[in-house]
Amino acid sequence: MTSHEQQTSLPRVGVVGATGAVGREIIDCLERRNFPLSGLRLFASGRSAGQHLPWRGGMIAIEALDDRSLAQVDIALCSAGSGVTKQYAPTAGAQTVIIDNSSAFRMDPDVPLVVTEVNAARIGAHKGIIANPNCVAIIASLALWPLNRENPIRRITAATYQSASGAGAAAMEELRASTAAHLAGQTHVPKVLPHPYAFNVFSHNTAVDPATGDNDEEAKVARELRRIMDLPSLAIGITCLRVPVLRAHTIVMSVGFEMPMRPEAVREILSGAPGVVVIDDRGRNHFPMPVEATGRDEVLAGRIRIDRSDPEGRTVSMIVAGDQLLKGAALNAVQIAELLPKAGVYPNRPVG
Amino acid sequence: MTSHEQQTSLPRVGVVGATGAVGREIIDCLERRNFPLSGLRLFASGRSAGQHLPWRGGMIAIEALDDRSLAQVDIALCSAGSGVTKQYAPTAGAQTVIIDNSSAFRMDPDVPLVVTEVNAARIGAHKGIIANPNCVAIIASLALWPLNRENPIRRITAATYQSASGAGAAAMEELRASTAAHLAGQTHVPKVLPHPYAFNVFSHNTAVDPATGDNDEEAKVARELRRIMDLPSLAIGITCLRVPVLRAHTIVMSVGFEMPMRPEAVREILSGAPGVVVIDDRGRNHFPMPVEATGRDEVLAGRIRIDRSDPEGRTVSMIVAGDQLLKGAALNAVQIAELLPKAGVYPNRPVG
Repeated sequence: MTSHEQQTSLPRVGVVGATGAVGREIIDCLERRNFPLSGLRLFASGRSAGQHLPWRGGMIAIEALDDRSLAQVDIALCSAGSGVTKQYAPTAGAQTVIIDNSSAFRMDPDVPLVVTEVNAARIGAHKGIIANPNCVAIIASLALWPLNRENPIRRITAATYQSASGAGAAAMEELRASTAAHLAGQTHVPKVLPHPYAFNVFSHNTAVDPATGDNDEEAKVARELRRIMDLPSLAIGITCLRVPVLRAHTIVMSVGFEMPMRPEAVREILSGAPGVVVIDDRGRNHFPMPVEATGRDEVLAGRIRIDRSDPEGRTVSMIVAGDQLLKGAALNAVQIAELLPKAGVYPNRPVG
Repeated sequence: MTSHEQQTSLPRVGVVGATGAVGREIIDCLERRNFPLSGLRLFASGRSAGQHLPWRGGMIAIEALDDRSLAQVDIALCSAGSGVTKQYAPTAGAQTVIIDNSSAFRMDPDVPLVVTEVNAARIGAHKGIIANPNCVAIIASLALWPLNRENPIRRITAATYQSASGAGAAAMEELRASTAAHLAGQTHVPKVLPHPYAFNVFSHNTAVDPATGDNDEEAKVARELRRIMDLPSLAIGITCLRVPVLRAHTIVMSVGFEMPMRPEAVREILSGAPGVVVIDDRGRNHFPMPVEATGRDEVLAGRIRIDRSDPEGRTVSMIVAGDQLLKGAALNAVQIAELLPKAGVYPNRPVG
């Protein structure tokens, strides 16, 4: 095989929503992981077209996404919201695989919902779209899945400490700007998020179901965790809050198992789990923290101990923290793309 | 009775630890609640002696606490740490009632542990010391106690979002300073707390029991909640974390009841509960937030809904937020002092 043939057998990759917080991380992941590709296209709304973003020492011009864009790439890493994916998915080529970061297709039975460390085998069943799960669901699943294989999980009670990044780059900037204003004794009126963010905590900014009281984020995490782990009857009670943190989510979880479970066993299992780093130093009071999860590919897990609200000793609590933009979004999407050839479903695009 | 006699029958009040975050709030509570007293003395360490703090339009000089201080007051509102209370309690006069904000005597069976809305009746049984509970325990108990009277609580799973103020005024300043440094792109080395605070979340800064993995804060909250509510077998699993918030704690609680419990019933009970304000607006996504709890005497409760981790429908989750320095510390102490005469145990100090 000549080097020319090798080159042309590599996929053409497109990033849709290239200027967003996740889009930029996708580009960064492709570059630092040296993703094998024959060409990179960056797509965004017309507003951003003509701007440039750095790529492998040079610059790439951003193109306005249109009806021809997705047909011109083999892998489309989409992070532009449900509306954009729904609108443009039908314009993809027969060879295009869309890896979508929105919630548009996550519960579609024809669309695999994949966390690469948990259910990569499902990638092979795709019909042109693979869904990247909700960030909290991804981060939690990395710690839950290896435990479930040893001792089936029956019940999860969780509370989240979610960062600004999940609401996009503008929310991260609002956190910075409102905090600076607060420190300067100035008033700041929130525009991106519904509540003041400086030194505050608030219930997640998605809509609340008037009947159940659950918000959209909580509903997504619960149903996606069940689907990712193939545990349709898993009981999940979760409360999602935003805290003034820039880009890593922290989750406190009480995990109820079918059989009694020792914290030592949990620690041992997680110490060998892919994508997980255990940080559980009781003597130095060192446990998972969002500032230490930031910029890391791995999810941090620790403070593993008996949950004393369960007198039967079947429940273990822990803290998990993960970079929302990396494993919670961009990195998992790129990891899915990396597995496409291994899954035997790599598009054998005719050259030319 | 002449006005002179009325005056001299009022108690002499001392605030110990007057310059601390809680001490200053105690002085403020005494002033704005127009606490009936014949004289106010402010005590602190020798370092602060000679400084002045405002009181009713004038200024009061801070005195160095010594072995004669507590004998010279009828009510000593102490907030200077366990060591100080233990050292000076034996120097109190026969007439002195110490209301102590430290954990020194909270589990002493001879010392009432009082939240005024929950168990004020126990004030009468004091033997010179009344303990003010841990801030999280106070704030949580306000919402839990009225529910427990209607449907016994069997199990609580909780995660906290605790503010800087619980670690004192210096920790609040460290949060401000480290955040300002972060925004300016500068390095900040934490001195008061063990971890970087700017845009971070970390496990509570108290020591972690090497055997159980619980930290001191979690152990305090659990045992004090049991004692305040007189529920010795209540199962509590709690995880205490600090978030970058200045002075109000937020708590996410899943409350497991003996009998099935409807969220509507919880909402109705809490709407009539003393010291509690329900904020539970699903349509406007408006729920308890620490910035709205700040400066309020009441504890905010909301996001009341079924906890879906309990398939039996006996568990309701909610968010509670309360000002750590007010109801969580200073206000409850002053409210205890206000009830001393009503409890029939008011010191009938000989005039002169």
